[in-house]
Amino acid sequence: MPNIFTDLPAASAEEELTDLLSRPGLRIERIVSTGQASPPGFWYDQAHDEWVILLSGSAGLLIEGEAEMRLAPGDYVYLPAHTRHRVTWTNANGPTVWLAVHMGEEAKATVAATGP
Amino acid sequence: MPNIFTDLPAASAEEELTDLLSRPGLRIERIVSTGQASPPGFWYDQAHDEWVILLSGSAGLLIEGEAEMRLAPGDYVYLPAHTRHRVTWTNANGPTVWLAVHMGEEAKATVAATGP
Repeated sequence: MPNIFTDLPAASAEEELTDLLSRPGLRIERIVSTGQASPPGFWYDQAHDEWVILLSGSAGLLIEGEAEMRLAPGDYVYLPAHTRHRVTWTNANGPTVWLAVHMGEEAKATVAATGP
Repeated sequence: MPNIFTDLPAASAEEELTDLLSRPGLRIERIVSTGQASPPGFWYDQAHDEWVILLSGSAGLLIEGEAEMRLAPGDYVYLPAHTRHRVTWTNANGPTVWLAVHMGEEAKATVAATGP
């Protein structure tokens, strides 16, 4: 049986994104961060709704115009579409595991073959 | 910020089901068990798909025709519609917290007002 806390990337690795389940209109994703944060000045501004829970580690989450939040295991947040947000920090000493549920997301763009 | 591990029911309580997010076609639910199991001979046989992860505690899950599984924190299972399954036991000494994502579920029945 799969376990969300196993097969974690090495500490030196990039943030790792893994789809645990993906179907039209719904995607359940594991995100593993090890010290990464959103690039300076970068804001997520998604066209779809997201529900996310932090399962291990810790992180800072900033929603534009609100006070920065410190997330501990079990903390969850609903981010409606176009809620501008950024991850200000994640624990650098071990993996921070998030579970994200993406709702009503548009299918990933595919290269359309258009005729002349 | 809400936390999935807080406001847990008393150990003596019934299994507690709480919708964390509910919208057409998607429901994210917290389930807290404290020793409960499915009634003898009872099988869940849902008309919708479910993805479930155990977040604290431990439980036994039996899918009809398969070997019984022992779930520990982080273990997750996808249960397509009509996968007959039952919870054989949950830890009696503390709360077992599950996070279930119900997909494509029919809206709960409402009493229809029908004319004569």
